[in-house]
Amino acid sequence: MSLETVLSRIDQDLPAAIERLLELLRIPSISTDPAYRNDCQTAADWLVSDLQSIGIESEKRQTPGHPMVVGHIDGPGPHILFYGHYDVQPVDPLDLWDRDPFDPALEDVDGHKVIRGRGSSDDKGQLMTFVEACRAWKSVHGSLPCKITFFFEGEEESGSPSLIPFMKENAEELKSDVALICDTGLFGDSTPTIVTMLRGLLGEDFTITGPDRDLHSGMYGGIAMNPIRVLTRILADLHDDTGRVTLPGFYDGVEELPEDVLAQWQGLNFDHAAFLGEVGLKEPAGEQDRMPIEMIWSRPTCDVNGIWGGYTGAGFKTVLPSQASAKVSFRLVGKQDPDAIRKSFRDYVESRLPEEFSIEYRTEKGSPASQMSIDNPAFEKARRALSDEWPHPAAYVGCGGSIPIAGYFKDILGTDAMLIGFGKDDDQIHSPNEKYDLSSFHHGVRSWARILDALAKQG
Amino acid sequence: MSLETVLSRIDQDLPAAIERLLELLRIPSISTDPAYRNDCQTAADWLVSDLQSIGIESEKRQTPGHPMVVGHIDGPGPHILFYGHYDVQPVDPLDLWDRDPFDPALEDVDGHKVIRGRGSSDDKGQLMTFVEACRAWKSVHGSLPCKITFFFEGEEESGSPSLIPFMKENAEELKSDVALICDTGLFGDSTPTIVTMLRGLLGEDFTITGPDRDLHSGMYGGIAMNPIRVLTRILADLHDDTGRVTLPGFYDGVEELPEDVLAQWQGLNFDHAAFLGEVGLKEPAGEQDRMPIEMIWSRPTCDVNGIWGGYTGAGFKTVLPSQASAKVSFRLVGKQDPDAIRKSFRDYVESRLPEEFSIEYRTEKGSPASQMSIDNPAFEKARRALSDEWPHPAAYVGCGGSIPIAGYFKDILGTDAMLIGFGKDDDQIHSPNEKYDLSSFHHGVRSWARILDALAKQG
Repeated sequence: MSLETVLSRIDQDLPAAIERLLELLRIPSISTDPAYRNDCQTAADWLVSDLQSIGIESEKRQTPGHPMVVGHIDGPGPHILFYGHYDVQPVDPLDLWDRDPFDPALEDVDGHKVIRGRGSSDDKGQLMTFVEACRAWKSVHGSLPCKITFFFEGEEESGSPSLIPFMKENAEELKSDVALICDTGLFGDSTPTIVTMLRGLLGEDFTITGPDRDLHSGMYGGIAMNPIRVLTRILADLHDDTGRVTLPGFYDGVEELPEDVLAQWQGLNFDHAAFLGEVGLKEPAGEQDRMPIEMIWSRPTCDVNGIWGGYTGAGFKTVLPSQASAKVSFRLVGKQDPDAIRKSFRDYVESRLPEEFSIEYRTEKGSPASQMSIDNPAFEKARRALSDEWPHPAAYVGCGGSIPIAGYFKDILGTDAMLIGFGKDDDQIHSPNEKYDLSSFHHGVRSWARILDALAKQG
Repeated sequence: MSLETVLSRIDQDLPAAIERLLELLRIPSISTDPAYRNDCQTAADWLVSDLQSIGIESEKRQTPGHPMVVGHIDGPGPHILFYGHYDVQPVDPLDLWDRDPFDPALEDVDGHKVIRGRGSSDDKGQLMTFVEACRAWKSVHGSLPCKITFFFEGEEESGSPSLIPFMKENAEELKSDVALICDTGLFGDSTPTIVTMLRGLLGEDFTITGPDRDLHSGMYGGIAMNPIRVLTRILADLHDDTGRVTLPGFYDGVEELPEDVLAQWQGLNFDHAAFLGEVGLKEPAGEQDRMPIEMIWSRPTCDVNGIWGGYTGAGFKTVLPSQASAKVSFRLVGKQDPDAIRKSFRDYVESRLPEEFSIEYRTEKGSPASQMSIDNPAFEKARRALSDEWPHPAAYVGCGGSIPIAGYFKDILGTDAMLIGFGKDDDQIHSPNEKYDLSSFHHGVRSWARILDALAKQG
């Protein structure tokens, strides 16, 4: 009955846990603005002190930027590393906030309670779910069930410049059996998720040059090949009529979903009409034989993120431009090889350029997709633990974007990461009036207690 | 032998004619820069005085901008209106000039002589070819063979804002049997031309909107339709693989060249490799079953003059933009109807937009092509007269661009215009080191004497 006792303690302690979170939220630790440099130090100090109050040996570790907080506590179970970040996004435009973003409060919204304030969801509220779970466990049992390393960053919202050097310098200290990252969300309102697939990213930024100067379309129109015409044909033919990307070899390394994961996703009943409708769209644009949720989580994509050429000001100028440019990016999945795709893309583009055209690339780095080894029993343990807490069973999901930290744990520390979080789509992170549902916070804390319990058990 | 006497007088008077042109070139009549307002008045005064010195009744006529110069002289033959402009382009960048642009001189360049200075070719030098022809004729015969109206503008390089109102207010005074415009060039080095076809122009400037806000390609990439993808497919399919424009009805009203004109053009031996090579291109981009010179002069075109959408700054932003925009223009020929083509274009674009997309047009005016009635005997008379003066027979040619003045003569005065000029491709008009070949000037003056002689003859 040890878990039940911990869960009860969490319930009883909820008002105090909220007060602690509000205290942390009052510190304006905006990492990207130098004016808040001292506040980032203050937030780190607050966390060190809070961890110490639980009995966790912890300290602030300076970097060239904002400090890291690292804490350790021993325990009988496997070694777990928990990651979160204490820095927050800027608050502009301030006039769109209904309250001071750093004067947080518990608000009642249409009958349910939310914690309102900058960082309430991203990521102070999420970070504290784990800390509160540990506090409750420690107060009930006097110790924790696993060996735990706490690792909090203060630069996540400003590009994490110190993260990789710090992880490399302290790799031995940070290595663990599994990493937990709490910076993601629920599916819908109440389906917990573990992100196991993160798409990679490859960018190509390039300019093609045809005529060696801008030409007058009166004099040259009709006889001179227009680079915009060449570019639009190249870009238009990157997809076929069924939404597939046409680059030779593009789908090499793209794997079909395991049947159980496919079943989980079908069970999610993703409402793509609502998802697209919210931004004014209707029909899914990806491969026509795929579920919409696959398009986002597990299928590779190609998008033109920017295009420019010729005269783009007001009115008209009948120029036939010398150059046309585009930024194209690919979201990668499975074992797709960024280098091979870059080569395939360049071969494709160059094969379609008139002989006298030239091309210049402004190379962007590519990163492959991350796929967690869900064979690691920790994943299934965590999934069951989450399913016990929430009304719907937990699902292994993909994430369309990239969360670089997960890749760093794998690459630098050799540790698989489980991305588990309790945010909701309407939390307005990075926007005015950010909030975290009280139910996210409360069930989040309880979820971690269940996960600690599950991970600590043998087999 | 009256023409021969005039031609001899022209030859004898050439040094003095050059001196007069240099005097006019010293006046910095830059129309677009208010700092040179008085200089435009001075140039107009100079012309009035020069015409009066020949015995032509002339005066400066004020407009809200720079003045017009209008002169009249009677004669037995048909009534001719001659148009030129005395204003010139700005001279920046000044440091690329090898001499003061307003300290003109006769220079020796690799064994042939050029008149160097701003306006030497465009259009003071060309304008003076006609004036000098009249001067020589008058001095030999005491009168001119035709009734002539001189009409000089001072705002051609700044959009001719006063031209249409002035022509409308003075239509009765300016009406004539045929108009002569001297602002075009030779074909190659020594083939005189009469421009009889001017392509029209239709512009479409538009923006398509898909999602109602910019999206993150991590979250939406693959499922949300990217407006740039939609736009590139629309633009790419405007041409088929043979270079033809695909819009339904686009070629309605496009006529085949008369056989004699086709033969003239074939005789020109247009060196498209050299024409394109000079700007770094190789293969002609127009309809594959057409001569390259047809592509420029007598075939309609479609070009994208500008395209923009998404993130176009430095580095990468994985945005899936809400909008994408383009400026598309069509050069029109024959009886192509700008309104019908605009409608066909819009129908085409809108039929290819996803249902939920919207489109906004920033409408530009369209103008049909101008085609001179070469049935008017003046054309054939002028063509033979030019052929007598130059080593190659004169050709009726097209002009890829639009020269609005020719259309105004037709629309406002009901007068066909013959565009005859002696500029060369390397005159560097609008650029530093503008020049006019002495042979262009000398044979230009002689050409006009021959044309006056031919037009004055009955039948």
